[in-house]
Amino acid sequence: MNDAPLGLFDSGVGGLTVVRAVQDILPSENIVYLGDTARVPYGSKSPETIRHFADEDVRFLLSKEVKAIVVACNTATAHALPGLREQYRVPILGVIEPGVEAALADPQCERIGIIATRGTIRSHAYQHALAQRRTGLIIHGQATPLLVPLVEEDWTDHEAARLVLDSYLGPLVEKGIDTLLLACTHYPLLIPMLRQILPADVRLVDSATTCAEHLRKELTRLDLLAPVENQGSLEIFLSDLSDEFEALSRRFLRRPTGRIRRAILGS
Amino acid sequence: MNDAPLGLFDSGVGGLTVVRAVQDILPSENIVYLGDTARVPYGSKSPETIRHFADEDVRFLLSKEVKAIVVACNTATAHALPGLREQYRVPILGVIEPGVEAALADPQCERIGIIATRGTIRSHAYQHALAQRRTGLIIHGQATPLLVPLVEEDWTDHEAARLVLDSYLGPLVEKGIDTLLLACTHYPLLIPMLRQILPADVRLVDSATTCAEHLRKELTRLDLLAPVENQGSLEIFLSDLSDEFEALSRRFLRRPTGRIRRAILGS
Repeated sequence: MNDAPLGLFDSGVGGLTVVRAVQDILPSENIVYLGDTARVPYGSKSPETIRHFADEDVRFLLSKEVKAIVVACNTATAHALPGLREQYRVPILGVIEPGVEAALADPQCERIGIIATRGTIRSHAYQHALAQRRTGLIIHGQATPLLVPLVEEDWTDHEAARLVLDSYLGPLVEKGIDTLLLACTHYPLLIPMLRQILPADVRLVDSATTCAEHLRKELTRLDLLAPVENQGSLEIFLSDLSDEFEALSRRFLRRPTGRIRRAILGS
Repeated sequence: MNDAPLGLFDSGVGGLTVVRAVQDILPSENIVYLGDTARVPYGSKSPETIRHFADEDVRFLLSKEVKAIVVACNTATAHALPGLREQYRVPILGVIEPGVEAALADPQCERIGIIATRGTIRSHAYQHALAQRRTGLIIHGQATPLLVPLVEEDWTDHEAARLVLDSYLGPLVEKGIDTLLLACTHYPLLIPMLRQILPADVRLVDSATTCAEHLRKELTRLDLLAPVENQGSLEIFLSDLSDEFEALSRRFLRRPTGRIRRAILGS
């Protein structure tokens, strides 16, 4: 038992889809969320820069005395997680392992498509994690950099979004994928349109819900769960605060956010 | 006469369209360009954060002993230019005044559409500058946040780009604009498709070429032009370096970039 807060961070507000999933299955946990909205996105930037930003994000959360940290950002998980785990003693979880394990939970899974930012695809972190766990998989990574801007513009049912998804997914469908891994915390908001576009037998695996389930197991194993009688709380910090980021936060969390505060990073 | 370099900065590599225009009409000038690719974009962030970033950008250029600075970024011009001019003694030019003057150079101009990032539109800097110079103008600002990602994805002739532009521009065309101000340094790359979509009598004014012409006049007035026998040079610094940013730089400059170096900001 441990009633210190959990820390989650993302490059922006997309990681609030993970917060939502964590609140759903771990309602007693106090959560501190950090979105690095001043420097968002990470997905188009270099590994070195992403590691530098992720390190500052972790230091901020540690200043809030968190008991464990979730890297709720696929790009940061892909490039920074191993280094962060070496450097800090607090348990640090990423979004990649849970997504990979959820994808492979189906023994029939053979042909996997991965959609993500350029940074995540180029890191080969998903491809590597999948290939390590099952031989003979056929894996297709597709960078889909326009999806985050489309989600943030709230055009998730716009005809342009359909055209963009058709262009990105067409080659994956032609290759006969049986599973599509949504390897970016923004993408759960595209699930309704993805369902329309993809053949009915393609399974969707999203990193937000799978990560929350993984977190529950890890906290149980490490005896770090909050007392069940606890009424969990949520504190949101953003490195750039604006009406737009606040509105986006409500869309991603799909519930009230409470007061959002400004985080000063790198000081 | 002054053979110190000119400094230009932008949130990313879009400002290289301004560099290109400056090289075309001022071939003797040595240019130092800074793109803040580690924190790009600025257009979706808050005025306070943009001012903080722009200040660090100016300090970096001053460390290179530039004789004048061009804020080759519409969002930074909109939010930071007045403060920068108060704080620093070096001449600092923005992209807004030149664009506004070019738009109003046509005495027939009455109905102006402005397309730009959310930050630029929300600043009302263009609307204010236009209204100050001519009464009775009808001005429509339209935030077009998906255009930068589309340009960066190199989808400037993709059907999805056409749908996005149709959605953004339809309301402006219905309002009978006679002039469209491209108030973002990325947008010149969309001119071919804009020409297809807009009625033939809508005039396009882009901030890159108009800014270079304004710079030539200001340097002449201040006696800061480089000697004409000079062979101008270009040094590019980016705060995040990657193959992708290097490739994008070549697309925006449309000529070889030379060696691109990493800039450390805020130290």
